Amino acid sequence: MSYQAPLREMRFVLHELFDAAAHCERLGNGLDRELIDGVLEEAAAFAAGEIAPLNRNSDEQGCQLVDGAVTTPKGFAEAYRQYVDNGWASMTGPLEYGGQGFPQLVSFAFHEMLMSASLSFRVYSGLTEGAVLALHKHGSETLRQAYLEKMVSGRWSGTMCLTEPQAGTDLALLRTRAEPQADGSYKVTGSKIFISGGEQDLSENIIHLVLARLPDAPAGVKGISLLLVPKFIAAADGTPGARNALSCGALEHKMGIKGASTCVMNFDGATGWLIGEANQGLACMFTMMNDARFQVGLQGVGIAEAAFQGALRYARERLQSRGLSGVQAADKPADPIIVHPDVRRMLLTQKTLVEGCRMLAAYTARQLDLEHGAASPEARKAAGRRAALLIPIVKAFCTDMGQEVASLGVQVYGGHGYIREWGMEQLMRDSRITQLYEGTNGIQALDYIRRKLLFDGGAELSALQAEFSALCETQLPRPVLAQMASLVQARLGEWRELSTEVIAACQRDAQEIGATSVDFLQYSAYVLLAGFWLQAAARAQDALDAGTQEVAFYQAKLDCAAFYLRRVLPRASGHREALLGGAQCLMAMPEESFAF
Amino acid sequence: MSYQAPLREMRFVLHELFDAAAHCERLGNGLDRELIDGVLEEAAAFAAGEIAPLNRNSDEQGCQLVDGAVTTPKGFAEAYRQYVDNGWASMTGPLEYGGQGFPQLVSFAFHEMLMSASLSFRVYSGLTEGAVLALHKHGSETLRQAYLEKMVSGRWSGTMCLTEPQAGTDLALLRTRAEPQADGSYKVTGSKIFISGGEQDLSENIIHLVLARLPDAPAGVKGISLLLVPKFIAAADGTPGARNALSCGALEHKMGIKGASTCVMNFDGATGWLIGEANQGLACMFTMMNDARFQVGLQGVGIAEAAFQGALRYARERLQSRGLSGVQAADKPADPIIVHPDVRRMLLTQKTLVEGCRMLAAYTARQLDLEHGAASPEARKAAGRRAALLIPIVKAFCTDMGQEVASLGVQVYGGHGYIREWGMEQLMRDSRITQLYEGTNGIQALDYIRRKLLFDGGAELSALQAEFSALCETQLPRPVLAQMASLVQARLGEWRELSTEVIAACQRDAQEIGATSVDFLQYSAYVLLAGFWLQAAARAQDALDAGTQEVAFYQAKLDCAAFYLRRVLPRASGHREALLGGAQCLMAMPEESFAF
Repeated sequence: MSYQAPLREMRFVLHELFDAAAHCERLGNGLDRELIDGVLEEAAAFAAGEIAPLNRNSDEQGCQLVDGAVTTPKGFAEAYRQYVDNGWASMTGPLEYGGQGFPQLVSFAFHEMLMSASLSFRVYSGLTEGAVLALHKHGSETLRQAYLEKMVSGRWSGTMCLTEPQAGTDLALLRTRAEPQADGSYKVTGSKIFISGGEQDLSENIIHLVLARLPDAPAGVKGISLLLVPKFIAAADGTPGARNALSCGALEHKMGIKGASTCVMNFDGATGWLIGEANQGLACMFTMMNDARFQVGLQGVGIAEAAFQGALRYARERLQSRGLSGVQAADKPADPIIVHPDVRRMLLTQKTLVEGCRMLAAYTARQLDLEHGAASPEARKAAGRRAALLIPIVKAFCTDMGQEVASLGVQVYGGHGYIREWGMEQLMRDSRITQLYEGTNGIQALDYIRRKLLFDGGAELSALQAEFSALCETQLPRPVLAQMASLVQARLGEWRELSTEVIAACQRDAQEIGATSVDFLQYSAYVLLAGFWLQAAARAQDALDAGTQEVAFYQAKLDCAAFYLRRVLPRASGHREALLGGAQCLMAMPEESFAF
Repeated sequence: MSYQAPLREMRFVLHELFDAAAHCERLGNGLDRELIDGVLEEAAAFAAGEIAPLNRNSDEQGCQLVDGAVTTPKGFAEAYRQYVDNGWASMTGPLEYGGQGFPQLVSFAFHEMLMSASLSFRVYSGLTEGAVLALHKHGSETLRQAYLEKMVSGRWSGTMCLTEPQAGTDLALLRTRAEPQADGSYKVTGSKIFISGGEQDLSENIIHLVLARLPDAPAGVKGISLLLVPKFIAAADGTPGARNALSCGALEHKMGIKGASTCVMNFDGATGWLIGEANQGLACMFTMMNDARFQVGLQGVGIAEAAFQGALRYARERLQSRGLSGVQAADKPADPIIVHPDVRRMLLTQKTLVEGCRMLAAYTARQLDLEHGAASPEARKAAGRRAALLIPIVKAFCTDMGQEVASLGVQVYGGHGYIREWGMEQLMRDSRITQLYEGTNGIQALDYIRRKLLFDGGAELSALQAEFSALCETQLPRPVLAQMASLVQARLGEWRELSTEVIAACQRDAQEIGATSVDFLQYSAYVLLAGFWLQAAARAQDALDAGTQEVAFYQAKLDCAAFYLRRVLPRASGHREALLGGAQCLMAMPEESFAF
């Protein structure tokens, strides 16, 4: 499938909605609008020209494990070399270790492009960035000196080794052991599963971040430590040194992302070093969790964009039947299927979900940047609260949406959507993992209610709602936008009431936390996207009022906003009613009565 | 994955909801309750013991095409032999050609079991049954004598050759030609795609029903004829005779149902014979269309049942985290995940959708039986109208639901759901075709609005709504059921109003047909299922009132009905609001503005 980065859309989001240049000036990273646009154009060429062409074959070929070595699909190793040599790997890395320090508000666009081009390819580098974050923040000076620069450059890669067969969502159950040695190192022993990029032929070295228990560790999650366990132990001269006692025992056979190696990793007394304090492993992991979950949410957007592009292309080319109101293309044997209202419904659902989620992701990226780089501690804290509130929504909603948009892509193709060569079904298979890893979407919803909403009694959510309410107030007086603004304002009022009810219900009965979580997250996301669509419509109307030359582009934003509010936002009503159905009807039936 | 037919559930639907024995007596086919239950028990043993074990391997192995011959997965040929030898193939066939004449209200349960066990395996025999219907009704005496008995027995199989590369939904565009010969036969030339079972190693002969154009045919769908084109031309002694000039040119590479061969079939002047009149091919196809679409809807139910069983088993075994209201299984390292409200939400959504769709399918099966076998012409016509109204809902809703339930199955398994060995992701891939073939679900929705609702101004739909209204009236006075009945009654009133609005909108603007179709079908289905759940709850309460020994079984029906009404039915609100959003916001944006 061919892919073209939606550069105009991305510039709209970056500059016209979120003023990326001013954001960069505030962060003091020296990026201006011209530089940003130049980088994104090069990024688009790299993603479309070098990565996208590898994707279809990577699915057919997959990864092979022979004698402990993993071969990635044809072209991945060469593309990864380019990715490193041209500096793409170091885009977000810290400056003092050779990184380029790009803010997320800019880098997210490049990462989305990579994910559209090949989710499998992106999986390898995405995890390295997370490992860099954890090591940079919590690692000892010695470890950072030995490993960070290589990881930032991408020449060495990183993994996250969390899951064990009996411990997935529930890390309290993990068993991997780390025994302290006289020299301050540890011997790590245990088996980890679902390790993305655990073994591969792309990077010179692989640095595993492993959760394990020290001998005297308390039970449960308070007894988990994080260790750095390299495939090759860094030598004094900076080369990969001695081979460590760890190996890839097997590759998983998966539904999709077959180009990404998913490994069983066996640690047999492998040498490792603590990152952070003993028994503080989970806290260290939390450092990268926001970033990792943001990245997975973005995978939903990337896949969805690719699926939308494929469906749109097909809908404009495929001739089948005549329009309901009469012949549209008299010179052809049938009309292109984009004339049919139901095909347009599918395409516009794709388009408004993709763009809505991209706005949500960009807004969240901006908060992540400010959390680390805002001038005052108060501003950093405020941004951190906002990002924490939004991260589970970005992760869960953007990936649920990614799956839906990919499935709509298959549907637009009809029977051809089911055929591998067309590439649409691969997007469905690839995207399905995003609803599962980095915490299933059910876990995200629990996090949203429990750690975000109940934690502060809904204060941060109220602040977010107030921001969008203020936007509605400014748009109500504008004739073109009044109807949209009042519709969004009404939903915001409904959302506020619903939040109060949900909080009260959860405080009354702990089961309500899990009974309302998924529907409340979905409800919240649909209303949030309505807010972003109003914002997009407002900026579009600004441009039209100012006499823009790009009338069609901005008019499309108004049309899409109208479609979203009329035809997609109503789903919020279903989620609201469902969650008000409460916990009792979920918990009443005894386990034994589920099947007869 | 192991599978066990839900026999108790099926008996509830067959006997307690739809009185299958009385139905059979009315049809005069000599089946009583004991015989029905005996057959279903044997059927369950066959599906679970012989077919289900083949399914996982069939996905990995797929079909192979070598020198024009197709090899099906290991075990399929032997299982098919048993399927024929033990008389399963002939269950629904007409008595005069050696069939057993089972009504659909009974056979659907067996077919659902087969689909749960292996959709790929079922695809081969399902199409033969459709071909038998068309040949039986429209074929000449000569053709029927030569082919029907063999096809009814399953020793010879049937296919439907409709689609061509340029003609899928739009059969007006098809190009395959049939040239009349002096002896009354035709030479058929053309290429067909997506032909399920077009070539295989299961049956001794393959009888293709091919849509083609005669030389003098009018353009469009009024110039399409149906021809019987056998792989081997039946010899006078009843054996497969001379090899015909047709061949399998390629197998498609698909997302799923990899055990079912999906063939490109090339007809190179192959000998064939008209079925029915020249240029009446579409009318002949319509004979089997209701049956074929019903069967595909049932595939959704079958896959969903398998996914539910897998998810339930895992949810009871998998230990992970503690319940929200405290420890549930103190003797274990963690609680089984079925204690978590959100996991229960997923399981109950699966269960109530599966059982709801099964009730809908059984109700429709009964109408299909009466359409052909009721005593009076009026009763046959009435049943035909009812079946015609429901078929697009069965096809589209049960398959959409099948995909959702399969996806929920993956979600319950967490990361393991993505791993092929667990079998859950295969169900998602296998089920995805059901939303596409036999007319995409978008086409079903158009059929529902255009040919069913607008055709009679909503009269048949009103009659159906009145039936459920009457049920509500009878249940309102019963304390346990009053709340449910009033909730369903309210929805029925809303549905009536919405139907009137939809009809008016479609008459005003043809684009509204396609703009409202999918949402209105979904809305209708959710309310219909609410009616069936009320019916199930009423029968369950009858049994409880009568002092049944199976208290847990019937109480579960009441619990499930309550869950469905409170937590699933609310989706109808979202569909209602969305379709009221109208066509204008779908059609406003010019095609060129979909991407920049």
